[in-house]
Amino acid sequence: MKRTERIGAIIRILTENPSKAYALSYFSELFGCAKSSVSEDIHVASQAIMFTGTGSLETIPGARGGVRYVPDISDEEVLALQEEFCSKLRDTSRLLGGNFVYTSDIFYDHDMVSRLARVFARKFRDCCAEYVATVETKGIPLAYNVSHLLNLPLVVIRREAKISEGSTVSINYFSGSYDRLQKMSMSKRAIRSGSKVLIIDDFMRGGGSVTGISEMIGEFGGTVVGVGIAIVANEPEVKKVNDYSSVINLGKVSSEEKIIEAEPNRSLF
Amino acid sequence: MKRTERIGAIIRILTENPSKAYALSYFSELFGCAKSSVSEDIHVASQAIMFTGTGSLETIPGARGGVRYVPDISDEEVLALQEEFCSKLRDTSRLLGGNFVYTSDIFYDHDMVSRLARVFARKFRDCCAEYVATVETKGIPLAYNVSHLLNLPLVVIRREAKISEGSTVSINYFSGSYDRLQKMSMSKRAIRSGSKVLIIDDFMRGGGSVTGISEMIGEFGGTVVGVGIAIVANEPEVKKVNDYSSVINLGKVSSEEKIIEAEPNRSLF
Repeated sequence: MKRTERIGAIIRILTENPSKAYALSYFSELFGCAKSSVSEDIHVASQAIMFTGTGSLETIPGARGGVRYVPDISDEEVLALQEEFCSKLRDTSRLLGGNFVYTSDIFYDHDMVSRLARVFARKFRDCCAEYVATVETKGIPLAYNVSHLLNLPLVVIRREAKISEGSTVSINYFSGSYDRLQKMSMSKRAIRSGSKVLIIDDFMRGGGSVTGISEMIGEFGGTVVGVGIAIVANEPEVKKVNDYSSVINLGKVSSEEKIIEAEPNRSLF
Repeated sequence: MKRTERIGAIIRILTENPSKAYALSYFSELFGCAKSSVSEDIHVASQAIMFTGTGSLETIPGARGGVRYVPDISDEEVLALQEEFCSKLRDTSRLLGGNFVYTSDIFYDHDMVSRLARVFARKFRDCCAEYVATVETKGIPLAYNVSHLLNLPLVVIRREAKISEGSTVSINYFSGSYDRLQKMSMSKRAIRSGSKVLIIDDFMRGGGSVTGISEMIGEFGGTVVGVGIAIVANEPEVKKVNDYSSVINLGKVSSEEKIIEAEPNRSLF
């Protein structure tokens, strides 16, 4: 196998499996070459990945050393994503009754979702989470993508207890968005007791839903180590959650005045 | 920029954006080199990707020619995935009341989901779909991953009409699994009228849910051009849907006898 092909194959394997460590011996056996050659190949592979702005390769030193792909996104690309996101959101054809904003197309679009996921992967890569959790439905692709980039299992909390989830723990919480009590249920099999959990969701207004998820994690003896939300409404100013990271801040939304205000969160990093 | 780095960057960019065509001029401008060099680089990049068994690069000839990454999975890897999937499913600790089987951990695991997604991407890459559709909740990560590999937008049909979906079309259908009438709702904004749609879901018993999705697509003047289901139960033998592709066939499930039978679908390709 030629050196250029080896480098290409290393890039493909590592970036297909983000945050997952591979021993150098894995590649030296795969290619039938010396570990020293693999080390040199990895150096070039890392340069190539860094050129694309999507991350870099991190080598783990020592006898049992290895390498893994660490996803990343540059400050410029974060800003470009935020601007593009805001400009999509400001489109007043998104206005729905009750001053809601239609966003499903954005959260089901893999280009937007995978860039947002790299933002959260950068933000939370050192938070030591063992799971990524979300509550159904619209945040699932984003939470799934983040869980992939951080090489963590995903947990999806349901609105209703389902027979296919087995025994569940259920809680009630007050949703400001819907101005009523809501329920959420999580399978007893979903996480190990005492786990560290990163919460990812598409939208937050008062924080009722995130508080509900946190309470649920608490029922499993777990700890919330990070909260990443794509869009956070400016109102109400006082949230039920203190510590969260938004990508976009949503200002005034009015069907009458035909306006949707959206701004990048400039203190994200 | 060195040739090896160029090749690495080409691999990274194309595989991050599956099924999306890039003009050769995109790369020649990015790297500041001749199109002929880019052509040679692409050839080596394709060899490297093929070595990893995850697909290949397809060049589009002509003056406006370009290149795109076509995801794939080998027969051997399909079989290995099916065997691993079956062996997970046969674990009787998955047995729930009502002879249901717990599968959430599998459908939220990015390693299993991304391999399953490559199976469906291979199966349906020539079906000319314009959307990938699923009904919430457990099939969403898989359907999202397939939509990414085929470079198509995702549509998620909801169980309940939500205010955040705007005007919706709702239908009722009979679910054999739950032995009752169920409802599904789809936003009027979700697909263009007359579209071709690929349905992806995690599980099918009698086919009520898939029939419901098809009927819904029909309400939008659309056509179903493919149905891919991860797990299909052998019973009932007669399904409401004729044309579908399963990865795993689920046999007898009995809490009393402590048994879950699962077999690979060997006529998938």
